Order: sequence, then structure tokens, then C-alpha cells
Amino acid sequence: MAKLDIYQQLAVICDSHEYPIYIGANFLTDSELLNRHVDAGQVLIVTNDTLAPLYLEQVLQSFTSLQCDVVILPDGEQHKNEKNLFTIYDTLIKNNHHRDTTLVALGGGVIGDITGFAAATYQRGVRFIQLPTTLLAQVDASIGGKTAINHPLGKNMIGCFHQPHAVIMDLNTLETLPMREFRAGLAEVIKYGFLVGGEFLNTLQTVLADELTGISMEQLASLIAKCCHIKAEIVQIDERETGRRALLNLGHTFAHALEAYTHYQRWLHGEAVAIGLYCAALLSHQLGYLDKTSLDLVDHLLATAKLPRRIPKEIDLVALQTIMFKDKKIKNKTLHFVLMRTLGDCYIEALITEENLRKLLIEAVQGDQQ
Amino acid sequence: MAKLDIYQQLAVICDSHEYPIYIGANFLTDSELLNRHVDAGQVLIVTNDTLAPLYLEQVLQSFTSLQCDVVILPDGEQHKNEKNLFTIYDTLIKNNHHRDTTLVALGGGVIGDITGFAAATYQRGVRFIQLPTTLLAQVDASIGGKTAINHPLGKNMIGCFHQPHAVIMDLNTLETLPMREFRAGLAEVIKYGFLVGGEFLNTLQTVLADELTGISMEQLASLIAKCCHIKAEIVQIDERETGRRALLNLGHTFAHALEAYTHYQRWLHGEAVAIGLYCAALLSHQLGYLDKTSLDLVDHLLATAKLPRRIPKEIDLVALQTIMFKDKKIKNKTLHFVLMRTLGDCYIEALITEENLRKLLIEAVQGDQQ
Repeated sequence: MAKLDIYQQLAVICDSHEYPIYIGANFLTDSELLNRHVDAGQVLIVTNDTLAPLYLEQVLQSFTSLQCDVVILPDGEQHKNEKNLFTIYDTLIKNNHHRDTTLVALGGGVIGDITGFAAATYQRGVRFIQLPTTLLAQVDASIGGKTAINHPLGKNMIGCFHQPHAVIMDLNTLETLPMREFRAGLAEVIKYGFLVGGEFLNTLQTVLADELTGISMEQLASLIAKCCHIKAEIVQIDERETGRRALLNLGHTFAHALEAYTHYQRWLHGEAVAIGLYCAALLSHQLGYLDKTSLDLVDHLLATAKLPRRIPKEIDLVALQTIMFKDKKIKNKTLHFVLMRTLGDCYIEALITEENLRKLLIEAVQGDQQ
Repeated sequence: MAKLDIYQQLAVICDSHEYPIYIGANFLTDSELLNRHVDAGQVLIVTNDTLAPLYLEQVLQSFTSLQCDVVILPDGEQHKNEKNLFTIYDTLIKNNHHRDTTLVALGGGVIGDITGFAAATYQRGVRFIQLPTTLLAQVDASIGGKTAINHPLGKNMIGCFHQPHAVIMDLNTLETLPMREFRAGLAEVIKYGFLVGGEFLNTLQTVLADELTGISMEQLASLIAKCCHIKAEIVQIDERETGRRALLNLGHTFAHALEAYTHYQRWLHGEAVAIGLYCAALLSHQLGYLDKTSLDLVDHLLATAKLPRRIPKEIDLVALQTIMFKDKKIKNKTLHFVLMRTLGDCYIEALITEENLRKLLIEAVQGDQQ
């Protein structure tokens, strides 16, 4: 991929402040940009052991005139836990970070979530900057202020809403992203396609049909910007997910249960989301909303991105269903699902019975031909 | 003390919602009142092993028609920690509490802080109700939405702002409060006296000179209501302590350091605040602000409440000073102190040198005659 000269910039307006999203290239070596949203003389960079050898040195170059400390966590969703959260707190306290410090999350969704939660809760809240390095984090996790760690019994069970002060997306980082992770990110991109439909969904179909071979950095930036724009619009209306923001969870109730069932070991988050998107579409179809053509398109789009779409046969559906009833999207003991009327028209359905769910899960299990 | 028929009610308006403070008696057996601010069918009561035998049974009576779970923590500031926070999370998750659950903090500041923090962070925030059972929690900790746990290296280092949905103060609980704890609560009451001066400070002087022997339940309710009113006024203007709210920390920079130094074992919070209030007054005097008569009045008022006012001789002042520089109220590496120009006129002073502080601490150490 060629270097990108131009970049896109969006703004997110939240309750406490407004923050920019920068989308472009060569940002990780841009000292002015990286320092633009740092408040005082202290920075803590949180990253993981996969990214540190690739990017840490260059990012550190921008902060040589400040007190800059570093936490390097092991890579992986299973490390978004209490132990590593306290490693961040310990480092902040031992190095005397004050209330005006800035945390910098250099990594994917896991690093962004745990760093954001540490920032939300260290001394009752300090500022943080997202430097998302994965497609998934760029189009989803880094925007909107959801922060969290996992509990052994459920994903993101412990968290806060805490908005970043800037999101700086250097698309160069996608060059070192393993293809599997890039594809996992596409699951969230496709999710936006199902949420808004129309032109964006058409573009996605074309791009994915080509297996992304012909996509330029500019086109990719514009695709990512579109996702960020959709998300920012929704988050601005409903920052704390009391209503419309829940639409962004399309496919996620299934995904979270699948991830919890497999202890976050089997799938990348986006892969679980892909299965979840198919399940949401299938359930919408079974309930008489989504037509067969659209259901097939959902399946096809996810397939062209080489994403999984079925629940593996060996998974115990009863146990999976039990986990789903621990999901956060429960109100008055009713599990809320985001379903699709058509592609581009999603809504929140509160009247899903256990029988509906049982039938869905059975049909969503991998057959011999898929 | 006689039962109180009438009670006071105040409202606190915060960013996310408005909530009531009820001050009166027999509330813990008032099922209608206790249920008034519960949203759905789930409640988790958090209390400690001192209060549980006294009040838990009667509070549970109000929630028999709901799913009501209980966490009983060991009593004491040293238990406001990570381990007990996770005990609360574990109980919530194992008992399938959803995002619309309500946490009920039945206890003093420690229970309120840790329960509030659990509520702030469980599933990114659920509602909670404060049932403060100590004078200190009633006049201070239960109002304003500061939640936290302690880190071994500093008090309240990990926390959030999360406002309760109701604060229900049953003054009957003060009847079982040990006298030492009641006096510790008076330290915060006296702090409000120094913050606002005037009529309220005069009333306090009279009441304390009588050693509270003649005080009726109505007078006590009115005193507590006045403190709540002062705090609510400030919190409403500056919920997240970016400015004026810091005035409420009068005496607290010293208090937090003293508590951390002694691992939260030696003093009750209010006792440490009492020493801190004297230190703040003495520093104000040393810097030429507060006159000698007012300094003596500070000392005298705290003495009539039988509270400590001096730093014990055996405390290492250098170590104490080091701890203070880890305090949260630091901005751009400068320690901010709340000082007094006169009684009733406090302000935030940013220009305290290490030498100022050293001189103050030496003079604040207990002499042979105090």
C-alpha cells in the first residue's frame, strides 16, 4: 500500500467534550499530532508484546520531552482482565502520575478497552488517547467511549463510559496486521453495511467481491471514515446506550456468548461477530422479518470476507443459551436482540422467547455442506 | 433520642439526573420509601459485618417481593479494596444481575464508596441507593457521587464519579454508632463550619460547647441538612471537581497522607480530617492569611469535639511529605491546598513550596502540652 498524503478528519461531540478522529498515515511518527491532545507533562503508553517491537520506539520518540512510562501487556482478549488493569494502576501510582496525566492506548480493541477503563477510573478519571492499530479498533472499539475489562463469567462485564480526547488512526499499522485480524475487522465494517444499507452496502459488496485486492489506501480511509461517521452519529445521540446506540450491538449478543463459551480463545472478536450477524439475520428471517434473499446476501457477504458464519457442531447450545441470559442487554429479565427488518433497517426486539432462541441456535449450527 | 416524626428533604441536581436526600427516622423499615427508587426486580444490598446483625434483617423485609442478594464485607477502611470490589462483582454476575439492577449501600463511607464504585462499573453503570448509617457518611460521603476503592499506595486512587439515585438517612442508625465514630463525623460537620462561617459556625460552637448533650433529633436533622445543603450546592456547580468542588477537600490533603502513612489503621477518616483541618488552618496562619484568634478557634472547636489536632511525634515527616506529593489534588506537579483567609472564606492555593510544607509539618507535630 502506498503512503497516504491526505487524511480524513471527523469530530465526535460527547457530553463532556468534543474530540477529533484523524484517519491517515505516518501519524505514529508525527510528534506534533501525538502531543496535540496531551495536557500536562506526563504520559503512560499502554501496548502489547506484539506491537511493542513494531511501533513503540517510534511513538516514544514523540514524548522524549515528557515523563513517559510504558506498560506492555501480553497480547490477546484473555488478558483484558483485572490483573492487567492493576498492572496499569500500579505503574501509574509508582511513577507518580497525577490527575492531569494522559494515557495512550497503542493497540487494538483489547488495549483500547483496558486503557480506557484505567483512564476512566484512575483518580476518578484522566484523559486518554486512542492509537488504534487494527481495523476492528479503527471502525468500532476506539470510538464512543465504551471501556471495559472481562470477568471470567462474561465479556466486558466491568466497565465505564469514558470518552477519549483524540482518536488517531495510522493506517500504516494495517500493513503489519495479520490477514486474519484484518478480516475480523471487516465483520464490523459489514455490520455497518447492514445497519445503514444503501450505497455503503453496495460499495462493500463490490470491494469484498474483489477480495480487497484493488483497494487503495484512500478508498480504505474513506471506508473507515464512513464507519466512524455512522458510529459517531449514533453515539452522539445516545452516549450511554439508553436507546438507539444498542443498534450497534447487532450480532453482538450471540458473539459475546460464543466468546464467553470458548473463554475468548477460539475466535477473534470480529469472527464471533460474523457468526452473530448471521444468527441475527437468521432469527430475523425465522420471525418473518428479513426475506430469504437478504439472508443469503448476509451469508454471502460474510463468506466473501472469509469469515465464519455458523455455530460449530460441538458447542452445547443449552449452555450457550444460559450464557446469553447473563448478557448486559437484558432489561426486566427480557433479552433484547437487535434484528433486521431489511438490510439497512434494524430495530431492537424485546419479545424473543427461549423457544425462538432454541430454534434459531439449532438452525445456525454448522451443517456438513457449509 | 426520641423518634422523629418530621424529616427534611433536599434535592441534588446532577448531570445525569436529579436525586433526593431524605433525612429522618424509621426509614429502614419503610418499605415504600426503600422501594421508591428501585427500578426493576433486582437488588443487591452491600453492608458490613458490624451493621448486618443490627439492620440487615429489617431492610431485607422491604425487598421480599424482589430478587434480593446480599454481600457482607468485613468492617473497616482497609477493606475498601480490590478484593472486596470483586466480591461484589462476583455476586452480581453469579446471581445474574442485569443492567437494571439496583445496588443498596447500607453502611458508612467505606460501604458507600465501594458499592458506588461497583455500581459505576458493573455493566458500565447501574443505579445505586445510599443508606448512610454514620454521621460522616450522612454529611459527606453519601452525597455527590464520588466513589472509589483504595490502592495500597494511596486512598481513593481508583474510582469514578457516579451519582446515587437516592440518599436515605435514617438517623436512628446514629444510636448504634460508637461515640468515637460520631465524633469523627463531627470533623466533617466542623469543616462545613469553616467553609461557610457565620451563623452555622456559631450554632456549631454552641452545640459543641454543650458536648451535644442537649441536642434533639430535630436539631441534629437540621444540622445534617445544612451540611448536605452546602455540599449539594457546591457539587451541583462542579460535579467533577474541576474547580470549586475542591474546596470540600479542606484538610483532606493532610488527612489522606496521614491515613496512607498509617495504612488506614490508626485513625478513622474523620479523625485524620480533624488533624488535617488544624494543619490547613496553621498553614494559612503561617502564610499570613488566617489570624491567631481564628487559628485558636479552629483548635478549640476540634478540641471540644474531642478530636485529635496534632501529628503524632513518631511520624516521619519526610515520608509523610512524599506521600502528599502522590495526592490526587496535584496539577502540573504543584500540590494544591485548600487554605483559609478567614473562617468562612476558603480558597485554593497553588503556590505552596516544599519548604512551606516542611515548616508547617514540624510545627503541627504534637508537643508535650497538647
